Formats: sequence, structure tokens, C-alpha cells
Amino acid sequence: MTRDQPMLSFEVIHSDGNARTARLLTPHGQVNTPAFMPVGTAGSVKGVAPDRLRESGAQMILGNTYHLMLRPGAAVVEQLGGLHAMMAWEKPILTDSGGYQVFSLSHRRTIDEDGVVFRSHIDGARVRLTPESCMSIQRSLGADVIMQLDECPPGCADRREVQAAVRRSAEWARRCKQAWIDAGCLSAGGNYQALFGIQQGGSSVDLRGESSSRLVELDLPGYAIGGLSVGEGHEAMCDVLAATSDQLPADRPRYLMGVGEPRDMLAAVACGVDMFDCVLPTRNGRNAQAFTWQGRLRLRNARWISDRSPIDEGCDCYACRNFSRGTMRHLFLAGEMLAPTLVSVHNLHFFSQFMSEIRNAISRGELAKRSRAWQDALYARNDCENADDCD
Amino acid sequence: MTRDQPMLSFEVIHSDGNARTARLLTPHGQVNTPAFMPVGTAGSVKGVAPDRLRESGAQMILGNTYHLMLRPGAAVVEQLGGLHAMMAWEKPILTDSGGYQVFSLSHRRTIDEDGVVFRSHIDGARVRLTPESCMSIQRSLGADVIMQLDECPPGCADRREVQAAVRRSAEWARRCKQAWIDAGCLSAGGNYQALFGIQQGGSSVDLRGESSSRLVELDLPGYAIGGLSVGEGHEAMCDVLAATSDQLPADRPRYLMGVGEPRDMLAAVACGVDMFDCVLPTRNGRNAQAFTWQGRLRLRNARWISDRSPIDEGCDCYACRNFSRGTMRHLFLAGEMLAPTLVSVHNLHFFSQFMSEIRNAISRGELAKRSRAWQDALYARNDCENADDCD
Repeated sequence: MTRDQPMLSFEVIHSDGNARTARLLTPHGQVNTPAFMPVGTAGSVKGVAPDRLRESGAQMILGNTYHLMLRPGAAVVEQLGGLHAMMAWEKPILTDSGGYQVFSLSHRRTIDEDGVVFRSHIDGARVRLTPESCMSIQRSLGADVIMQLDECPPGCADRREVQAAVRRSAEWARRCKQAWIDAGCLSAGGNYQALFGIQQGGSSVDLRGESSSRLVELDLPGYAIGGLSVGEGHEAMCDVLAATSDQLPADRPRYLMGVGEPRDMLAAVACGVDMFDCVLPTRNGRNAQAFTWQGRLRLRNARWISDRSPIDEGCDCYACRNFSRGTMRHLFLAGEMLAPTLVSVHNLHFFSQFMSEIRNAISRGELAKRSRAWQDALYARNDCENADDCD
Repeated sequence: MTRDQPMLSFEVIHSDGNARTARLLTPHGQVNTPAFMPVGTAGSVKGVAPDRLRESGAQMILGNTYHLMLRPGAAVVEQLGGLHAMMAWEKPILTDSGGYQVFSLSHRRTIDEDGVVFRSHIDGARVRLTPESCMSIQRSLGADVIMQLDECPPGCADRREVQAAVRRSAEWARRCKQAWIDAGCLSAGGNYQALFGIQQGGSSVDLRGESSSRLVELDLPGYAIGGLSVGEGHEAMCDVLAATSDQLPADRPRYLMGVGEPRDMLAAVACGVDMFDCVLPTRNGRNAQAFTWQGRLRLRNARWISDRSPIDEGCDCYACRNFSRGTMRHLFLAGEMLAPTLVSVHNLHFFSQFMSEIRNAISRGELAKRSRAWQDALYARNDCENADDCD
């Protein structure tokens, strides 16, 4: 037990408009924000070994409570020493609450004030998730940041449904806090865990305001923005963020859940968001799409057949140091599993570099100018616009 | 062009009965024999990045001419800088002739004295392979050791067929040698390539003798033993090796093609064989079977569910340094691609260690004693005996 260790600390370093850089300190080390968290869905960042993940510049990763509670189960993760030991990742981890996947992946769910009952998408088993069990499971997983159970209504939900979700989520946040306090804010392994609340409210500024007010009363270590990136599009997301992100306190980290599209992150950072997570770099990597500073490359494209240049000339990731576009194309066409791994590694490296450049721009007061240039460059190449496997 | 570089050299260091250790020197470095070559079928050792392959102790790898000539094609490999550059593997490479896969994988093949015509298993394209084109393709690939085109008759072939294959293979060896000499023994990239002949003859000692005599007349840098490990079983293979391996000259490397089962390698080493290749460590790794000094583990087995020990306590491979059996089991059940990669890395490390121990035993004159102990230990655990996915 390590009750003497520091709780989460969050120190803003530089500001540029509403954007800021900060240092987030967790029991497993420091995270420089704005930060992007790669997603380790079911106990691994798909195809990427932890040493390569570290080399890519990843500071903190996300684990999915929904997937881990179903398989191998929270008790097994705890027996294996917690998620850090299981994944061989000694740096910070955040686990989500499982709520989002319950609503997007599971079958025959029924929700009431107490919690949600659903059928596992793996074997149909009936599972009950309440604010208290959600805390207990995340305690077993042992992440540095844990998330409250929330209800994330679909993008098409009407105002009444969104309002109900806001109130239910706020009440669940209160119960999560109580369970967290009762456990001494400690993981099963004895590490301090920081509980974040989740703002809901859809596209409604006043419902997001109500959600924030209810959460901020609880005085939690951090707050997330939920219920965005559910199909509303870039402009609508920007409008909501611009109108509502200052509803969350400036002295706590703000985490925009499930967002990783570079233009969305640029807009969110400008609104004061500090943390992001998304499967984009790994999912697109598995589908042969590589991020570069000049836009995205489809590596299956015939134009690369005998191209000896790396994915990105200026990149020093493991893939670019060793392999040509021509080899990458061949490995994808031949179905060699090394290919998705290599492009995932490259994309994760790109995302780390991108966040690093964002932090540099904020510290120099140049975020707006640099953002425009990046957007022009990153979205200039349009050979992916209509590709099914992108995003 | 590097015409001044040394050709292949092969220096025997220690002998123990017919077994020997030796140093094989190639343009891309030294190989200590007996050596096991991991198989990089289509331009990658499946799932294993070259830095991990190096760390596993692999000294030399094999590339499959059949797969590479069909996709991406020999010309493309040459444009990409040859197989070493394409695979980011700067150590020695051997390419096979493609003949074995033509006979095992392709459709509608017709063979005559000039060569073989077949249909690609990928797209049905009609392809012609002759001794001369086989040399030309391997010249483009650029391996350090290249193999003659041979005819490998099936295990069930009768004596007449085997004898015809022996004579045809010998004639093809002569034509391969001529094409190789005409090319200055150099790859397209200008590196010296050593041509190996392939002994055939099935289970017949006298036909293997005829095959060897015909090949040895050509005075090639090395000789392979083909047409074994085609279903004849361990005892029959041992009988053939014991009766015929000394038909091949003691001052040249002897390479037993397609063999990697540890007990087969032990028997072959005792008969004076120096080199091996097999997909066993990577194929079994992908199927969750791990090699250990106490036998093989099936990592999907429920008994490992919360086991925090590594695959093999004494192993210092990347997988064993970082992951538990419990995590490995979970990653396989969850379908995470990291799992096959990690167990392939572990198995390759095991195979390197195994060959290293064999070399040590030979140098101490203890091969027979150690072989018995290894066989007892490696085959004691029988939880894999009937598994479809093993071997």
C-alpha cells in the first residue's frame, strides 16, 4: 500500500488563448499535455509491443473496461498484477467506464436508475454494470485515471433523452465518487487512482452546462467531455466545444473522449482540451493508411510498387528507419502481419510528434497560425476521402 | 561490384563423431553451424521485425523464391535493393529454388527436361521455371546462398520416378552451375552468391549415392539434402541420413532442407548436417504453442489463466522478459495479433539457444549424451501429441 504517494497533480505551464500546455503527474509518471492516448482495447495496443509504444513517444494509454471485464475478467487482471503488469506498460494508464461500449457493442441492454444490464457481445452472458461495480472493476484493473459510469445517448437522441442521460450520469458520478472514496481512492494494487467525471448534454449548450454544474459540485480530479464524435461532424463538434468547454474548471484536466482526428484535436486544443484517445492511428495502420505531414498515404496503392523511400522522409520511427514504401505495399498485399504492425508504429509516432508540435506551438503563442498550416498540409492529399477503411 | 570479396568459406572447428561445428563465412557475415534458419517466406519472418529476429539469435534466414517471384516479383525485389534491403536484414540470407513449392503449392504443373510450367496459386498466372530462370531470379533476390532448381518427388513416388528425379535434378544442377558461372557468381547487387546442389533419391541409399556422385562432380560450394521430411517419419529419416550423409563431402556445408523438429535436427547433426530451415517456430508460435526446455506449452490452455510466470523461467527473450503465461493466454483468446508475434519471438529464441547448446555439446564431445537428455526433456510433456495445429 502506498497511501503516501501524491494524488493526481495538474499544473498549467503555458497558455495561448484557451489552449494550454500542462504537466499531469500520476503514480506511474508524468504526462505532458495536450496528450494523445493510444487505445489498448483488450490488453494490447493492437500489434504494437510496449517497447515500440514507448519509443513512439506514447506517454499514457487507454484500456477498455468493457472488453477487459468480459475477457479475461477484472479478477484475472488483478491476479495477473493489474493492467500495468499484464500489458508490460509501466507508464500511466486510463481506463474508461465501459459505459460507451455497453451502449455501442452489447445486445439487449436495459438501463434503469441503478445501472445497466446487458448481454456480452462475446458469449451472450448477462452482465450487470452499476456505478459501484464499475468502480470495483476499475479498482482491479488498477489504472491511474478511472472514469465514472455514464450514459452516452446516441447522436440522434432527442432533448428529453439527452436531459435524462445528463441527470442519470450526474447521479452515477455521485455514486462513483462515493465508492471511490470508500476504497480510499486506491487500486487493488495500492496505487492512487484519479476519478474523472464525464460531461454529457449532446449538442445542447444548456444541457452541457447543467451536466458540468452537477459534476463540478463533486470536485473531482478531472473531467471528460463525452457524447461527441458520435457522428455529428467536425463543425458541430467545434461549435459545442467552443460554447461549453469553459464550463469545466480550468485548473483540472479536460479529456475529450474518443477523439483523435487531427483537425478535431486542433479545434479542441484551442478550446482548452488537454487529453484525447482514439483508435485512429492503429485501426488505419492496420488498413494500410499512413499519416504523414503531407497527408495520408494508402500503402496498397500501385504507385509505391518499387518506391525505395520510407513512408515519411523526415520520420525516425522504426518503420521509416528500416522499410520502404515498396516493401510496405508488398507486405500488405502478401497479407504479412508485420505490415499492420509497422504502419501502426509509424502512425503512433506521428500522433506523438503531432501532439509535441502542438505543445511547442502553444508555448510560443503560435497555435492559431500553426493550426492553419497543419490543416492545409494534413488534408491536402485526398486519395483517402472516400475510402471505407479510413477513420 | 565487389568481385574482390571472399567467396563462401567453410571451416570445421570441432568434431564429435560425424557431428561438427564450423564457421560459414558469407558476404553478409558469419554463421556458426550447426545453424537453424528461420523462414521469411514472402519477405518477412511472419510477425517478427528484423530487430527482434536479430535479438533472438538468428544468424541466417531463408527466403522462398517461389513466393517472391510471384509477388512482388524478382524485378521488384531488385528495384527495392534486393532481399536484404527489402527485409531490412543485413545478415546472411539463403533462397531456395522455388522447386519445392512448385510441386507442393501450384496448380496444373507440367514438367519436362527443360523445366516446369505451373499456374500461380495466387492468381492462376502461367509461369515457367527453368534452371536458367531460377538462377536469374535468385540473382535478383541477391541472397548469399542460392539453391539449384531440383525435382522433389512426393514421399509415395516409386523407384522409377525417384530415379528420374535424381537424373533430372543432376542435369538441372549442371545448367544452374553454368548460368551461375556465366553471371560471375554475383547477385544483381554485386555480391558473391554460393550455389548449393540438392541431393535427391528418396529413401533409396543407392539413388542418393548416384545423386551425390553426379552433384559432387560439379564441385559446388555446398550441398543440400532434399526430399526428406515429406511424411516418411522420424525413424525413416534417420535411417536415410545415417546411410547417405557421408556421400556428401565433409569439407562443404550440408543443409537438410525443411527440417526443424528438434529430434530430427539432433539426429541429423549426429550424421554431419550443418544447416536447417523450418517454419516450425513461427507457425507453432502463431498457433499458441511455445517451445520450452521442458517440452511444449499450449498457451490457450485454461491452466494458465492467472499464471504470472513467463513462458519459460530461464528464457531471456523479449516475450519472457515482459509477459506472463496468463497474459499470453488472454491475448490469444482475445485474438490480439501481439500474441502470435510474441510466441514466434520466443520460439525463434528457443531454436537459437537450442542450436547454440548443440554447438557447445559438440565442442565438448558430449553430443550423444546431451542429445538423449534433451530428447527426454523436450518430448516428456505430451499435451500436444494430438493437436492439429502442431507441426
